[in-house]
Amino acid sequence: MKAYIGLDIGGTKILGVLYKEDGTELDRAKKKTKASEGVDVVIEQIYKVVDKLLEESKVELMGIGAGSPGLIKDEGIVVFSPNIPFVDFDLKGKIVKRYGCAFVLGNDVNVAMFGEWKHTGLDQARSVVGLFIGTGIGGAIIINGELYLGQGSAGEMGHMVVQDNGMICGCGSKGCFEAYASKTAMQKFINAQIKKGRQSILEEAMIDGGVIKSSVLENAYNAKDPLAIEVIDEAIHYMGVATANYVNIFHPEIFIFSGGVIESFGQPMLSRIIDEARKHSMPGLVDDVDFRLSELGDDAGAYGGYALIRSKVST
Amino acid sequence: MKAYIGLDIGGTKILGVLYKEDGTELDRAKKKTKASEGVDVVIEQIYKVVDKLLEESKVELMGIGAGSPGLIKDEGIVVFSPNIPFVDFDLKGKIVKRYGCAFVLGNDVNVAMFGEWKHTGLDQARSVVGLFIGTGIGGAIIINGELYLGQGSAGEMGHMVVQDNGMICGCGSKGCFEAYASKTAMQKFINAQIKKGRQSILEEAMIDGGVIKSSVLENAYNAKDPLAIEVIDEAIHYMGVATANYVNIFHPEIFIFSGGVIESFGQPMLSRIIDEARKHSMPGLVDDVDFRLSELGDDAGAYGGYALIRSKVST
Repeated sequence: MKAYIGLDIGGTKILGVLYKEDGTELDRAKKKTKASEGVDVVIEQIYKVVDKLLEESKVELMGIGAGSPGLIKDEGIVVFSPNIPFVDFDLKGKIVKRYGCAFVLGNDVNVAMFGEWKHTGLDQARSVVGLFIGTGIGGAIIINGELYLGQGSAGEMGHMVVQDNGMICGCGSKGCFEAYASKTAMQKFINAQIKKGRQSILEEAMIDGGVIKSSVLENAYNAKDPLAIEVIDEAIHYMGVATANYVNIFHPEIFIFSGGVIESFGQPMLSRIIDEARKHSMPGLVDDVDFRLSELGDDAGAYGGYALIRSKVST
Repeated sequence: MKAYIGLDIGGTKILGVLYKEDGTELDRAKKKTKASEGVDVVIEQIYKVVDKLLEESKVELMGIGAGSPGLIKDEGIVVFSPNIPFVDFDLKGKIVKRYGCAFVLGNDVNVAMFGEWKHTGLDQARSVVGLFIGTGIGGAIIINGELYLGQGSAGEMGHMVVQDNGMICGCGSKGCFEAYASKTAMQKFINAQIKKGRQSILEEAMIDGGVIKSSVLENAYNAKDPLAIEVIDEAIHYMGVATANYVNIFHPEIFIFSGGVIESFGQPMLSRIIDEARKHSMPGLVDDVDFRLSELGDDAGAYGGYALIRSKVST
């Protein structure tokens, strides 16, 4: 039986899923990334995931598709990754040498969004925009069935200035969308407010100093905590502005939202984003767009890897 | 001899140019659009331009490519135009019936930018962004050699919110790029300042109440008129912010600037836009891009029409 592997190489874990040609799942395997132990260990962890999938199934491996955080070159080289110690690392070379199959690598958000799009079954759509809103904000652009990457880094959709001379962003600029609507931005605002002595049920969630969980934020919002409402309403406003900007630029057929914040708050948040976007986009354009929530959750990366390599091998 | 016609259908005039297959100009003709006299008169004016080109040259007409202001559907129908009384007007049907040749129609800015790109000779570039900065601000996106239109209205690049809750824009939103850096925006600011009693050599240019000429603005800027300097510096800042946003989104190989403001101020303005964009884009991305000034001026629309129909007929 012909099969494909989709690999989601994350900062903490590597998920591999074995798929039949038609996208049905056959098996899955997961290992820790062990990013802190260096690149040689990470590549061994990747091999272990793939080997495990191949050992347990009698399949003809047609190809592997993978997503990794960071900047990817030539669909196979990790130029740089924020979470994994890859620097100009030829992952494609390694995989092709070991498994002798087709391989394609993309940025994690791009690959996951490609998977979400394929999963919608709306393959005939020729223009798709994806927005990932979680700890950070990323995006993906799919045109004529292919990920659009420009010279390699296209889709830096969190770093669109929406408030000139506004909040400082991690990228070095000011007023980026990410500096207003990412979970990191929300966390920063909540921390500052609590330090100022503001009462909030979010105070407890702040204790560990990490980035707040989307579900904690959602619970506080639903409990009508004024600080949670303020921070979420502000984020939705900026999500609407950014969405309007992307609709004006791309006038896409499909617009997919994913990421922890969106997945926690779901359809009510999406509806408010669309209402807000309508106020800022060119008349009528927002209503042409088929807005969708991600449906694959944690499997989007692996499924996207499958979808991507499947699209390459079949053409 | 095989030949193509490029048509630039503007609000005041229609320019037609007859080109050899290789893009060499054979002849040109110009007529008033007579937009105020209704659609039947406008179509007659278009026929007159084409007829004149065909009467005087013994050519085999392979196709006509045209650009028109407004929203274009199916590469042949003008859904709506701000300057010409076309409403759901099937221009392609009319042209094909009369001349029996291939025809393609696009939005004027899109078509002109396609022409500018083809004129660079950098046909191998697969990602091209064009920004038109004149009375208004528009844009064009060329991906894999084709104009990207999404559902038809993509490239509304003047209507990206860069200053949330900022200046009111003609589109109904607030804080759009066009509300800060178009000539209309500059004019508005200059008028307001002069009404407040501010001294400026631009005062004289305001008398007729129309939109200020880019050359007048340039002369005042070069004469170090403080108001002209303030308004141009502010516009350049926003042009830089918007350019950074587009570089972050598209990471394009080529970025072309056109329109009256850019054409008047030329390379010194472009250099300052790039410097400003570098401050706001993701590290390194701006330096990957080949920034160019338009070179075709008033001929961009007609040449773009030729380039567009040439690309369709040859494929």
